[in-house]
Amino acid sequence: MELKKNIYDLLKNIVGESYIFTDEETRNHYGHDETEDYVFPPSVVLKPANAKEISEILKVANEFYIPVTPIGARTGLSGGALCVQKGIGLSMERLNKIIEIDEKNLQVTVEPAVITQVLRETVLEKNLSYPVDPSSQGSCWIGGNVAENAGGARALKYGVTKDYVLNLEVVLPNGEIIWTGANTLKNSTGYNLTQLMVGSEGTLGVITKIVLKLIPANKHNVLLLVPFYKSTQACEAVSAIFRAGIVPSALEFMERDALEWTMRYVDGVSVPIKDKIQAHLLIEVDGNYPEILMQEAEKILEVVENYEIDEVLFADSEEQKNALWKMRRAVGEAVKSNSIYKEEDTVVPRYELPALLNGIKAIGIKYGFQSVCYGHAGDGNLHVNIIKGDLSDEKWNKEVPKGIREIFELTVALKGTLSGEHGIGYVQKNYMDIAFSKSHLELMESIKRVFDANHILNPGKIFPDEEV
Amino acid sequence: MELKKNIYDLLKNIVGESYIFTDEETRNHYGHDETEDYVFPPSVVLKPANAKEISEILKVANEFYIPVTPIGARTGLSGGALCVQKGIGLSMERLNKIIEIDEKNLQVTVEPAVITQVLRETVLEKNLSYPVDPSSQGSCWIGGNVAENAGGARALKYGVTKDYVLNLEVVLPNGEIIWTGANTLKNSTGYNLTQLMVGSEGTLGVITKIVLKLIPANKHNVLLLVPFYKSTQACEAVSAIFRAGIVPSALEFMERDALEWTMRYVDGVSVPIKDKIQAHLLIEVDGNYPEILMQEAEKILEVVENYEIDEVLFADSEEQKNALWKMRRAVGEAVKSNSIYKEEDTVVPRYELPALLNGIKAIGIKYGFQSVCYGHAGDGNLHVNIIKGDLSDEKWNKEVPKGIREIFELTVALKGTLSGEHGIGYVQKNYMDIAFSKSHLELMESIKRVFDANHILNPGKIFPDEEV
Repeated sequence: MELKKNIYDLLKNIVGESYIFTDEETRNHYGHDETEDYVFPPSVVLKPANAKEISEILKVANEFYIPVTPIGARTGLSGGALCVQKGIGLSMERLNKIIEIDEKNLQVTVEPAVITQVLRETVLEKNLSYPVDPSSQGSCWIGGNVAENAGGARALKYGVTKDYVLNLEVVLPNGEIIWTGANTLKNSTGYNLTQLMVGSEGTLGVITKIVLKLIPANKHNVLLLVPFYKSTQACEAVSAIFRAGIVPSALEFMERDALEWTMRYVDGVSVPIKDKIQAHLLIEVDGNYPEILMQEAEKILEVVENYEIDEVLFADSEEQKNALWKMRRAVGEAVKSNSIYKEEDTVVPRYELPALLNGIKAIGIKYGFQSVCYGHAGDGNLHVNIIKGDLSDEKWNKEVPKGIREIFELTVALKGTLSGEHGIGYVQKNYMDIAFSKSHLELMESIKRVFDANHILNPGKIFPDEEV
Repeated sequence: MELKKNIYDLLKNIVGESYIFTDEETRNHYGHDETEDYVFPPSVVLKPANAKEISEILKVANEFYIPVTPIGARTGLSGGALCVQKGIGLSMERLNKIIEIDEKNLQVTVEPAVITQVLRETVLEKNLSYPVDPSSQGSCWIGGNVAENAGGARALKYGVTKDYVLNLEVVLPNGEIIWTGANTLKNSTGYNLTQLMVGSEGTLGVITKIVLKLIPANKHNVLLLVPFYKSTQACEAVSAIFRAGIVPSALEFMERDALEWTMRYVDGVSVPIKDKIQAHLLIEVDGNYPEILMQEAEKILEVVENYEIDEVLFADSEEQKNALWKMRRAVGEAVKSNSIYKEEDTVVPRYELPALLNGIKAIGIKYGFQSVCYGHAGDGNLHVNIIKGDLSDEKWNKEVPKGIREIFELTVALKGTLSGEHGIGYVQKNYMDIAFSKSHLELMESIKRVFDANHILNPGKIFPDEEV
């Protein structure tokens, strides 16, 4: 799609000459996120200053049927920010302020392009916590977190992004600017458009301000790394810990390969892994009372000692804790650097994890692919990385998708679903029929049309190709 | 609306002769809930056995444009279950089973007509908690809680109904039965229809099964009753307690009148109230470690001692705790038994409570009405009871609604909204323009049409009269 001169001029008049780009380098730069090796450059990149300018841009786009794809930090793993139908790449980067930390009401109002970790650290200075911490928190933005309903390692205790979003300022495709709700903890006033917007992957509106709930920060935590001789026993232990009455603040699962590859990839992190160890659980409890945390850690030890484990590592300094977390957060990138791969973001009720893991391995054998699994086992969210390795392109493009389909079918059969925290975006959309009936998908598409009659906003996402 | 013979026969064939009623007594019985003194009998009462029958009923209703109002326990305070356009009153009472307590995944699957307290007590036997406890928990049903997104006294720490709903089985107005999501803690798979359905007050679909998240139950709690000489200082203390880093499990505010009327109304509850005491805070902390709770209670004492308070009552036995909670839960009924009244369910960010309370009293003086305020101050949710007393009918019907409008305008100006936990239903709908622009309301109405093109489901609710 080539941009016509008259439209270029209209857009330039809105954002100003310094914030409109059509050169190839810029378009390529904004044409990819972290999803496999896809590149879909937009026809033009715009960097608006505020909601008002975004409103004007959407009015033009709506009049001339130009696709608009909101672009955040481009750390997404489902291709939500890829400009698959070209058009306008709408970079949110200039909306990057923490507008107000409201200590009196434990809330923060923030623009979308604030790095999640920066937000977390800034509110922590006031002893407040925004506890949602995606593994990419050092580079992802809060706006993208809201758009994809991001989770992270602490979701099992603290919930996901949606559980903290109280209110959103949104620019609708017709240019109107609304607040979806109110800045209150309770709200039974009309339909919950706030929660409809969270996780809608930029297809219903452009988020320009976010009001988040904060909680008092916990002061202490204890971190354990437990090596298991059998992966499925590690998965079984996850559910057993909860049944012992403990809600850990993190409970992460890593297969042996994930850990070994990461140690090769990340400097300064090293954990001795004995022969025959198949998986590790990284377990954290947090709170304000160290003596209670030690009691809880001991209870956890009692639970995991029912399984075949090796010696448990207690992280006994902040440095060691940081190193372990750094390692865990780097798994995704380590896998990526190792081989071409596809990542699926499966989620099931947590007790079903062993069944899911066994099923994935069996499917891998059937279709001849290797997989590396890791993720937020405490909430049943397993990232399945399917490795190309030395598979032929033929096999990779024809056979592997059949295996992925079987993995998702298994996930849904276990009362889980396709994506726990990455979103459907571009790369999972053609599996949506596994989770939803045709009429259910049509219901979602009708909601899409209510917001975006001309289908300009982030087209080519969420809905299967044949459906739109 | 008279029911035609052919339609009666169609409906009778679906539910069976024992479960269709057109006699006046039954219609009147199902024609009211707890909202003021409204009675709107349906033309026919149906008591279907399951989702399949409800699906057949909705197909008939959709074909012949017959209004259908889902009816729960009829404990609602916004008129959500009133059959304001007659038609079918769809009593959910036979869908009353706890289907499965899934201890392995900390979930429960339940039908809508289970009493909330029964659900809570049943899962507690397994040391699990469903922590949402509306004041009417002894009689309300979980289905109505989901439909209205009910809150209650523990919402400040544990959240409201929406925070526990993982998945819903819903019969759509066209008769189709869908599950809205998956039984997982994380879900980024398409639009969040689960959360759109929660709080939609029976206008988008009929909820027939509910999957709720459970949490490990806390074993201990401490309860304090703090008398304040000034109501606004009681409100100020609410925010100060949170700022001291404590998240109480309940933080209830009661004006003097609320407490005095309740003591007259409820047997076996008596608290000495000194002259000049204007309000009380009922404060609870809970957890698993009694020594920690005592530390937190002491911190709370330090905070409230900064205000003009009288002697604090520590509830030192289960009996005393139960008596205090019984008293608190009876305030609504006590006010109701005292006079004709209107109840508004205002909610603001919690720090704004003193401003809200002062504003309400000033508006009362302006329009000449008395109000009694109480509620879940910890989450900024104040129930405003406007007392008819000896006001003339003329004043009650003409002037008081102007005052209510001003109260809601104040609420919205303070970044709050109309309803925290009761829903909009029938009695608040004509104030919706205060919270939402015309086009915002139109957006909600368009969503309504996506689900319910013929507008059969619970018509006359949520949307202002002129809008529909």
